Amino acid sequence: MNKKTVLNILSKICTLEAVLMLIPACVALYYNEMRTFKVFILVALSVAAIQLPIFIFTRQKEMDVNSRDGIAVAALGWIVISFYGCLPFYISGEIPNFVDALFESISGFTTTGSSILTSVDEMTKGMMFWRCFTHWVGGMGVLVLTVAILPSDKKSSSLQLMRAECPGPTVEKLVPKGRASAAILYAIYTVLTLIMIIFLVIGGMPLYDSVCTTFGTAGTGGFGIRNAGLGYYNSAYIEGVVTVFMMLFGVNFNIYFFIVMKRFSDILKNSEFKVYLGIIATSIALICANTMAYGVYGSFSKAFRYSSFQVSSIMTSTGFATADFDQWPEFSKVILVILMFVGACAGSTGGGFKVSRLIILVRTAKRNLRKMLHPKSVNVVKSDDKTLNIETVHGVSGYLIIYILIFFTSLMIISLNNLDFTTSFTSVTTCFNNIGPGLAKVGPTCNFAHLSDLSKITLSVDMLLGRLECIPIIMMLAPSMWIKKLY
Amino acid sequence: MNKKTVLNILSKICTLEAVLMLIPACVALYYNEMRTFKVFILVALSVAAIQLPIFIFTRQKEMDVNSRDGIAVAALGWIVISFYGCLPFYISGEIPNFVDALFESISGFTTTGSSILTSVDEMTKGMMFWRCFTHWVGGMGVLVLTVAILPSDKKSSSLQLMRAECPGPTVEKLVPKGRASAAILYAIYTVLTLIMIIFLVIGGMPLYDSVCTTFGTAGTGGFGIRNAGLGYYNSAYIEGVVTVFMMLFGVNFNIYFFIVMKRFSDILKNSEFKVYLGIIATSIALICANTMAYGVYGSFSKAFRYSSFQVSSIMTSTGFATADFDQWPEFSKVILVILMFVGACAGSTGGGFKVSRLIILVRTAKRNLRKMLHPKSVNVVKSDDKTLNIETVHGVSGYLIIYILIFFTSLMIISLNNLDFTTSFTSVTTCFNNIGPGLAKVGPTCNFAHLSDLSKITLSVDMLLGRLECIPIIMMLAPSMWIKKLY
Repeated sequence: MNKKTVLNILSKICTLEAVLMLIPACVALYYNEMRTFKVFILVALSVAAIQLPIFIFTRQKEMDVNSRDGIAVAALGWIVISFYGCLPFYISGEIPNFVDALFESISGFTTTGSSILTSVDEMTKGMMFWRCFTHWVGGMGVLVLTVAILPSDKKSSSLQLMRAECPGPTVEKLVPKGRASAAILYAIYTVLTLIMIIFLVIGGMPLYDSVCTTFGTAGTGGFGIRNAGLGYYNSAYIEGVVTVFMMLFGVNFNIYFFIVMKRFSDILKNSEFKVYLGIIATSIALICANTMAYGVYGSFSKAFRYSSFQVSSIMTSTGFATADFDQWPEFSKVILVILMFVGACAGSTGGGFKVSRLIILVRTAKRNLRKMLHPKSVNVVKSDDKTLNIETVHGVSGYLIIYILIFFTSLMIISLNNLDFTTSFTSVTTCFNNIGPGLAKVGPTCNFAHLSDLSKITLSVDMLLGRLECIPIIMMLAPSMWIKKLY
Repeated sequence: MNKKTVLNILSKICTLEAVLMLIPACVALYYNEMRTFKVFILVALSVAAIQLPIFIFTRQKEMDVNSRDGIAVAALGWIVISFYGCLPFYISGEIPNFVDALFESISGFTTTGSSILTSVDEMTKGMMFWRCFTHWVGGMGVLVLTVAILPSDKKSSSLQLMRAECPGPTVEKLVPKGRASAAILYAIYTVLTLIMIIFLVIGGMPLYDSVCTTFGTAGTGGFGIRNAGLGYYNSAYIEGVVTVFMMLFGVNFNIYFFIVMKRFSDILKNSEFKVYLGIIATSIALICANTMAYGVYGSFSKAFRYSSFQVSSIMTSTGFATADFDQWPEFSKVILVILMFVGACAGSTGGGFKVSRLIILVRTAKRNLRKMLHPKSVNVVKSDDKTLNIETVHGVSGYLIIYILIFFTSLMIISLNNLDFTTSFTSVTTCFNNIGPGLAKVGPTCNFAHLSDLSKITLSVDMLLGRLECIPIIMMLAPSMWIKKLY
């Protein structure tokens, strides 16, 4: 990689983060929380003071970003913004333990939503706003945001950055120019966010709560702003709005672009979208039936309300909870655990393994079986009428292997905590897939505060690995990444 | 497939099974258990009476077995022999529930070793012998046995049968002729079995116990013949012998062939063998340290004795237990669960995913990462200095996908029992990988009797799928399998 280029873009991203911190500073000022206000101003100025000189020093006339630089920026960028992002929590003393503050910050940016806070009601409004805002920024991506709003020097550069950060097996540009694609994505994201805020305010939710809840939903994050969660508002309307918008933010954003461009046939051709809706509908039906059979909910309407919310929340990796699903019958719990692995659509703000990867894997398996039955036939793996590149198929299989290896390694480290198997297993599942709550001692009514520092650090790494889909961070461990490309 | 050919070979296998039943009949006669003796004679005669006419009726002059026929024989053959194999349990009334009897029979032949018996001390000697003998027959394979001892018409036929039954990503012939290969495998298997029996008898174990324990070890099965398990003998020597032989039976049998042929360089080149030993050594060291740190065992020698036995038992998928590892600290338990998935070497009698597959997957993942760093380089996946066929690499990835899909589907069905997550998860893990005990309510001191019939049937199917490595049974669901090949 070209270290000068990488440093330059990194300092650009960090300066942008410093600017973003002025928003919670304003919120703190509005609520007359002077201490919180000062913390944000202090951190923002410090970050800018460190990063601006680096930015100026590493400036180049002709800047070309290759694929390695993009990977390095993604890996290092996410680590650096998480570090700076945790400073307000730590310096203000609202999260006095540094590892906890870093965990919370990483959980925010990676839109995981797992929290070490035992009570959120005591947090200042400004700090809570920043906590939720990290979800919104991390959801669509920090690099995408940088590409979208800051001028870049070369057209190819922006695509390399987006490709390293965007989830999914393949990245499609919406329009030929990378920067324009990024801007369109953020425009769609902002519009959907605004619509949701309006819907919540109409339902009687205070504006501040609506904005914070929407940040958590839009980024598929899931930080709660009340100890009682969304149950605090006791409103089926609000739960319904959140349910629908969680589903909407778990959809590949290309779909919204197609809607704007009136390319409806492209939507109908999109198999990921159909499978995604199919999995949600099936899961809701199964959990509805199972919870009713065990008498958890007395009426169908109640069972439907809670199962649809929880399914939508887990499948899209948001992690809000309106029911303590740890008390549900095992069958429903297992479905939720499976949904944690499946995850949302590629190109959405959601985490997990992604529906499109699952489709490619199932098609690859089918092709292999067909090949065994008819050894001489020519079989290719297709996706949406397009024959998939063999490298994409290899990439998805390779990703699955890395995913499994990281999963079991993390599980081993977490098990050193000596908590029960269910807690260990689901804490890795929920963090690695960027969901939020797990089962048992990390269930929806619990938090991650009681884990050891080693576990918190491991889970923090898992959250970053999950958000960046492993590859960029693993690549940074290869010595050849650190050598300037000569050929 | 050619139905006549398949039926012919199936009836050959069943007749062979009827003949094998005469062995436990003799044991029953020796111990003066006339009722058990009569049951075996009755079942053996009935099976022969049904199958011999079919054998004669489907005889052909020129019999050619293609790959589909081999797959069909493997899938149907294992179902039929398990069915006939359960009849002595059921008819004698020693296992009065038919689903239980079938579960026990499948668990025996697939060398799983999970049991529905709440007390084994009450079983007659003859019946117990049959129960353990199924491990020995199933370990090396029923089809391999058929190929080895019954005359076949065409050379290519035997290889197709062996290929469908032998575990591992690739099947290598030891010698050019399939039948000779099968005979060599069974010869090595028998010699190792005899050596182990001698070692146990020297240690003071009664002959009957030695033979039954050896059957369970050789087949990597793990049925206990005492309620107290191997702890009954309270002998470090006996535990040591079993530990070493479990490891030996988890090795690819090609290694023994190389030893006999003095091809020592081939052994040193075998990376699976080295990785297998490395995983065992590392796991023993980690569990030893972990259990000592938690004060489970007071001395190193005790910790080493119990950890080496348990690791060797789980890794090779045998499933004997001399310690209640469900009471071990979580870290040790997680290592055992991971070992359950890893499994033994390909071409051994052990189950699981197989070390060689794991090696191929890790190499594939490395290759993919290298490809991302150096997009223009040519990268191939190598195994033991040989470049792996792309179809083998695809096959292994495809197998992983099918493995995961079956695992989670089974987990969903088992969770309908509404037992805790750990029990559900490890019962599928242990049956699908042909191990034996799991954790929590299916731990080493528990059994599978308390599960529902639906769960028992699901786990039985998992055991068969695991033993035959999924493909043959799934293939039987393809309509084109049932059509006679015309081209």
